[in-house]
Amino acid sequence: MIVELAERSGVPAATIKYYVRDGVLPPGERISGKRTEYSESHLRRLRLVRTLLEVGKLSTASVLDVLTALDAPGLDITYAFEIAQRALTRSVVATAGEPSADALARVDAVSERAGWAYSSGNIGRAIAAQVIDASAGSGLYLDDEHLDAYAAAADTVAAADMAALRDIADRSSAAEVIVIGTVLGDPLSAGLRRIAQTHYANRK
Amino acid sequence: MIVELAERSGVPAATIKYYVRDGVLPPGERISGKRTEYSESHLRRLRLVRTLLEVGKLSTASVLDVLTALDAPGLDITYAFEIAQRALTRSVVATAGEPSADALARVDAVSERAGWAYSSGNIGRAIAAQVIDASAGSGLYLDDEHLDAYAAAADTVAAADMAALRDIADRSSAAEVIVIGTVLGDPLSAGLRRIAQTHYANRK
Repeated sequence: MIVELAERSGVPAATIKYYVRDGVLPPGERISGKRTEYSESHLRRLRLVRTLLEVGKLSTASVLDVLTALDAPGLDITYAFEIAQRALTRSVVATAGEPSADALARVDAVSERAGWAYSSGNIGRAIAAQVIDASAGSGLYLDDEHLDAYAAAADTVAAADMAALRDIADRSSAAEVIVIGTVLGDPLSAGLRRIAQTHYANRK
Repeated sequence: MIVELAERSGVPAATIKYYVRDGVLPPGERISGKRTEYSESHLRRLRLVRTLLEVGKLSTASVLDVLTALDAPGLDITYAFEIAQRALTRSVVATAGEPSADALARVDAVSERAGWAYSSGNIGRAIAAQVIDASAGSGLYLDDEHLDAYAAAADTVAAADMAALRDIADRSSAAEVIVIGTVLGDPLSAGLRRIAQTHYANRK
């Protein structure tokens, strides 16, 4: 029953109907003229869709892209991260335009010092390089020590995210959790950073 | 000359004129009928405005609020952080509505473990609590260990940001750098986190 799904998920029934109409949530299984059943996977999918729309601020079209990719056969963990990262790029990318070669080289250098292996097409590489370009024109020079501190912080949260996946046996749930974690991690970092900034600023 | 300002800042002269017209950049000082001069403070202000508009995606009205606050007499560092944090809230806040009391209590607990002192009105506290609420409904439970890892990362970047301010003697430049650093820090963290995620996902 849609009422039960609404109760278990905390999402209003009207919103659930809206999601089904838009195609981001599959319709329930009609088991009689009046009864429609929603499974555990419906509940999981509903939570994912809501997080992508409300926290990630993705468009319905982007949500559909993410879901299609998640439902592809043979999905692996690395690819799930890539999907989540690409879908969320729009809200993160610092500036329009391509990053400079110098900035990309600095990102590669800081990543090498951090011991990270990744491909040159990694979306995070472009984002970080765009920030370095923006900082160069802004009067705030990000030196290597400063960048290394941000890299150490990124390493800490990425390792913690990965540890949280260990207990999830089912591959399709793990992929959904990866997408949700990618969406939630950015504002969580931003929020805690603001508390820490206030703390250090008051001490000064 | 506006041409020199454009050259030194990398911002096209047409864009500079547009900023002056919108009131986010003061007009240059007219020293003769044909010559207008722009000072160092114009250059700094131009870089700040561009970062707020292009990277921070602030509206012209929000930029004006930030500038008015920065120009207030007796500005202190803590207040400069607060201004920057509030101006950037819109793009960060996770969900609509107030965070739950439970989530706020968890943020206070993680902050206490991190050794942070801050007021209950801190905007980061509300953001982090909203993420915790969103995660509870999303199928990804953020346990204390996971939150502590994010807090340790936030502490690392906030300490590095503060260290970068040490060399800036002039108070109004320091305030501008604080605002710029707050804008740039979020996408820098997000970019490096994506590289680190890919690294750990590949190793798995």
